[in-house]
Amino acid sequence: MDILIKNCNLISISDKREKYEPDMDIYISNGKIAKIGKNIEETNNVKVIDAKGKICMPGLINTHTHISMSIFRETLDGYTLQDWLNDKIWPMEDKLTPEDIYYASLLSCIEMITTGTTMANDQYCMAEETIKAANELGMRLELTRTVNDVQEMQRQRIEELEKLIKEYNHKYENITLNIGIHGLYTTGEDTVKELIEMAKKYDMNVHMHFCENAQETLDIKKAYNVVSPVDVLKKHFTETHNILAHVVKVTSKEIDELSKLKVNVSHCPISNLRLGCGIAKVKEMLDKGINVSLGTDGQGSGSNLDMFETMKFTGLLQKGVNENPKNLESYEILKMATINGAKALRLEDRIGSIEEGKQADLIILDLNTETCIPNGNIFSSIVYNAKGHNVCHTIINGKLVMENRKIEGIDKEKVYKKCIQIIDRIQ
Amino acid sequence: MDILIKNCNLISISDKREKYEPDMDIYISNGKIAKIGKNIEETNNVKVIDAKGKICMPGLINTHTHISMSIFRETLDGYTLQDWLNDKIWPMEDKLTPEDIYYASLLSCIEMITTGTTMANDQYCMAEETIKAANELGMRLELTRTVNDVQEMQRQRIEELEKLIKEYNHKYENITLNIGIHGLYTTGEDTVKELIEMAKKYDMNVHMHFCENAQETLDIKKAYNVVSPVDVLKKHFTETHNILAHVVKVTSKEIDELSKLKVNVSHCPISNLRLGCGIAKVKEMLDKGINVSLGTDGQGSGSNLDMFETMKFTGLLQKGVNENPKNLESYEILKMATINGAKALRLEDRIGSIEEGKQADLIILDLNTETCIPNGNIFSSIVYNAKGHNVCHTIINGKLVMENRKIEGIDKEKVYKKCIQIIDRIQ
Repeated sequence: MDILIKNCNLISISDKREKYEPDMDIYISNGKIAKIGKNIEETNNVKVIDAKGKICMPGLINTHTHISMSIFRETLDGYTLQDWLNDKIWPMEDKLTPEDIYYASLLSCIEMITTGTTMANDQYCMAEETIKAANELGMRLELTRTVNDVQEMQRQRIEELEKLIKEYNHKYENITLNIGIHGLYTTGEDTVKELIEMAKKYDMNVHMHFCENAQETLDIKKAYNVVSPVDVLKKHFTETHNILAHVVKVTSKEIDELSKLKVNVSHCPISNLRLGCGIAKVKEMLDKGINVSLGTDGQGSGSNLDMFETMKFTGLLQKGVNENPKNLESYEILKMATINGAKALRLEDRIGSIEEGKQADLIILDLNTETCIPNGNIFSSIVYNAKGHNVCHTIINGKLVMENRKIEGIDKEKVYKKCIQIIDRIQ
Repeated sequence: MDILIKNCNLISISDKREKYEPDMDIYISNGKIAKIGKNIEETNNVKVIDAKGKICMPGLINTHTHISMSIFRETLDGYTLQDWLNDKIWPMEDKLTPEDIYYASLLSCIEMITTGTTMANDQYCMAEETIKAANELGMRLELTRTVNDVQEMQRQRIEELEKLIKEYNHKYENITLNIGIHGLYTTGEDTVKELIEMAKKYDMNVHMHFCENAQETLDIKKAYNVVSPVDVLKKHFTETHNILAHVVKVTSKEIDELSKLKVNVSHCPISNLRLGCGIAKVKEMLDKGINVSLGTDGQGSGSNLDMFETMKFTGLLQKGVNENPKNLESYEILKMATINGAKALRLEDRIGSIEEGKQADLIILDLNTETCIPNGNIFSSIVYNAKGHNVCHTIINGKLVMENRKIEGIDKEKVYKKCIQIIDRIQ
């Protein structure tokens, strides 16, 4: 059914439009934004959403997460990245069944839709189950089968990845695939070479953890016998479109080189703080022209998938750590959470802003609440005061997947119960 | 009316009890916690709250805020502390009327009650109006009339403070008063001496900003001709109970001295980041035995009064900045937001934990939501996943001030409208 949004205050994140346009209508048809304007006429059989006094903006794009890790929420307190993976996560992951992945994915899709995220870049295993869950709820995802050399199962994992690509590439409008390399500290040069060839063969993005903490950076230097982890990128990653998650432990000189390599960085501030990794030099990366987008990481280290929190942390950390309150304007942070994410995934022609002809991935926010009123600056209000629960409607690919905070056709209580049972069983 | 909370999962923050007690009942009578136990019998004419599957914990205590600054929300982007005060805030404050303060205070009280804060330590002007608003909603506050020497109005301000004390000290059960010194960088030695004498005369806490940013620290050294701002405390503040807000720019040696002086620190991480002040050495202060509690600061720099956000930032910053994920256990952070706040205000015998005989200031949280399930650790879940809107009931001094997120007897829409009108008028 077509959708007509009436009288919203529009923040389109489109360079071709004003940054803020009050009282606008948006007509959505066949999954696309058909028309934006004043006083668009109601047609027959159109679903009308009254958005008077509310904000309409592009859906948020989470460029680094592990969707099925919802079940590991708050299992990690006090662990370092490496200890947490080795001692807790990997042993638990060995026990996961396809059904577990399905329910864990449903939970994350519910969480994303209710907190305004319309697309996520996932990196995990048994992606078929996550695709099934995403399709049921109408979520847009980019997925992969993560490959690393741990436990010497790289051959099986590479085969699973290629099988996934063959079965699901271009199968669903909301689902794209990419090549997931866990990280250079867990994946040897031969495997990396093979995966890069696969990325070129299928013209796919590469999604990899990179320099998340100091130990990882040391491990890469040792494993690859290089002066800098960036040397590995210069050797193998120059012909692929790369999304690097974290990028915390890099020097200014390395940021210069990353800029020349045109990599895309997914900044995950909450996970980085929680695991004691440090704080990425986001301001410097943006100043040097790197496309920085935002990610929550999985709930294991990121606690939840609320991208509004990630926006807030992003702005506050760059102001606070650099002791400069002028760093990172709020509008810039909104771009990081939307259009920069689309660019990272090479989907900027389809999503990431509200423009006629683009796919309709958008959210409606109600900021008329005690924690948001009054607001001296609407962009700052969204970044620093809005939270996921201020999202009242979520539209993905033209489909109203949440209306007045209600998701149709899903038994949330059953999903919650199943997820609690899973973690109780495997822990 | 008496209240009986049935079957809550209790986190009492009492050293005399288990940290977590499932399925407990709490009987509240005459403003006090009369009984905690299993299967407490219902009496006639008691209000029963079914809290099965929900958390009951002490109400949060915000030890540094400026309640009437709600109207300045998101007016500051890109300002340093000093420029923001001089160029924006102080000129706007000169235009505020008593009615403005009343409505701005109502908004903040609504915000605090709906986000689980049951007591706040305020520092502002026209406190009579804030007291009026707090009494209408049942909020517990400690207030003052802030004194500084800016605009040479210190005489008038000191008189207003003493008038406030004379009229309101011990007048209402929920209202306490203290001596508010804006800061040593805005208040000269003569005024400080006079205020310290007043604090001793009335046996009142002293509440002061201290070393919020690098410029302030330099200004204090110059104004007082001292090597360290702590020297001023050692000279004048040794006989008073002191609550110092911020304490960001201090050295390890100065932290040693602050510990010996037994000051209480109110850590306001969100405001500190937003204004580019830096990050306080909270872990070090706690390790050295300083009582550190939490504050949001006013909404002007802190955006909102949601203490759950402040807990999350507190934990994540101390892990991330020090690159040690073991820093600050979640339970320790819950103490900072509750009993440490009570100690800072010398009210630990009355509030800050759930114990028989204490005043009934407590909140009930519903964490059965998509962003909180499952939870591997209940304390971490509260610190890192709960938000203000997870609070369903708030009880202050034995009175149910919010039930199922509804506050009785207040026209919220009218308050919102009034507050928007105020900032539109004075800006």
